[in-house]
Amino acid sequence: MKVAILLYDGMTALDAIGPFEVLANVPGFQVEFVAEKAGPVREDSGALELVAARGIDEVPAADLLLIPGGPGDEAVMRNARVLDWVRRIHASSQWTTSVCTGSLILGAAGLLRGLRATTYWMERERLREYGAEPVVERWVEDGKVWTAAGVSAGIDMALALVQRTHGDDLAQALQLAIEYDPQPPCDAGSPEKAPPHVVALVRSAVEAQTAARRPGAAA
Amino acid sequence: MKVAILLYDGMTALDAIGPFEVLANVPGFQVEFVAEKAGPVREDSGALELVAARGIDEVPAADLLLIPGGPGDEAVMRNARVLDWVRRIHASSQWTTSVCTGSLILGAAGLLRGLRATTYWMERERLREYGAEPVVERWVEDGKVWTAAGVSAGIDMALALVQRTHGDDLAQALQLAIEYDPQPPCDAGSPEKAPPHVVALVRSAVEAQTAARRPGAAA
Repeated sequence: MKVAILLYDGMTALDAIGPFEVLANVPGFQVEFVAEKAGPVREDSGALELVAARGIDEVPAADLLLIPGGPGDEAVMRNARVLDWVRRIHASSQWTTSVCTGSLILGAAGLLRGLRATTYWMERERLREYGAEPVVERWVEDGKVWTAAGVSAGIDMALALVQRTHGDDLAQALQLAIEYDPQPPCDAGSPEKAPPHVVALVRSAVEAQTAARRPGAAA
Repeated sequence: MKVAILLYDGMTALDAIGPFEVLANVPGFQVEFVAEKAGPVREDSGALELVAARGIDEVPAADLLLIPGGPGDEAVMRNARVLDWVRRIHASSQWTTSVCTGSLILGAAGLLRGLRATTYWMERERLREYGAEPVVERWVEDGKVWTAAGVSAGIDMALALVQRTHGDDLAQALQLAIEYDPQPPCDAGSPEKAPPHVVALVRSAVEAQTAARRPGAAA
């Protein structure tokens, strides 16, 4: 089982690394990190480069595709070469998956039409632009297309995918292997649970970040 | 506030990337990835390289040190140059932290003597070799030394640290920013919660991996 995880400049590292840490430990799964060109990409904070072992031209097919999100998604959604690669991989994949705004990339590739899907909580309504029905769930399964909510949700989706493909024992073993027994010190992980002033704080911070990277904004 | 995250060959990527995704978004925090030498290191599965922007010689001090764990920890625990750097950073840090078996590296550097600490669930008793008292908690605070349990526990510890330094609002905002509303499909994230046969499965897999990388084992 060949797993391809897309990397791109401005992606959110945890979107990819969370599910990666689950999938990389499934017996028989071989994970490859793939970018438009092989080599380093810089994640959204700018502090870290992740190195893609393969360029998209070197990866004609994969059994499982995973697309992370992040502020760099907009550039990918305008990149015809990458969108074409996503469509080609999807044509023969067993599973096509995304984390956070990675689902908007699937949408831009035309792969969400008529499907139920989710994404980062702030961006859910944008799924309609791509013909998808936004759903408020930690992850959404619609046939072979699975989409996870924001950033950390990819860990839950990956465990659920392993549960589907290999059963409870392996899903539980991988959960224990990464000691995933979450105990966040607060309970504010969704806009329904966070206090309204905290939701407003995050919304304005993300909107400022989005405005700053719009074409024409000062770099 | 300067945050230094140590990278090394054979580290577990999520140990670093989980808390990184929290700390990188704290206003005023500047995160640097540091390795023995600047440049790429390979995480434990072998699928991905992460690029350290700085070598330890270029980083004489940091306010917050974070040391991830992973099978490569043993080599770091025998690396006098890196252990010396860890001690130097600790001498003036505000916070010295670890995730998973990163605490064994702190121990090998002599920084856990007489402290309460935690680590990956399978390795807890090894903390005694370094004069620490093993504690079964998601993360353990002892003065400025905070140690997290395995792999994913670094996310919880980082949020708790932000809660301590900046208060509830920012901790909640960062939890919402990474949509950390965990909903794992199983409840097997600790050896107390996982079924005994699953615990045995993980234990034997990890022990086989450990034996394979012992000095003298076939590469």
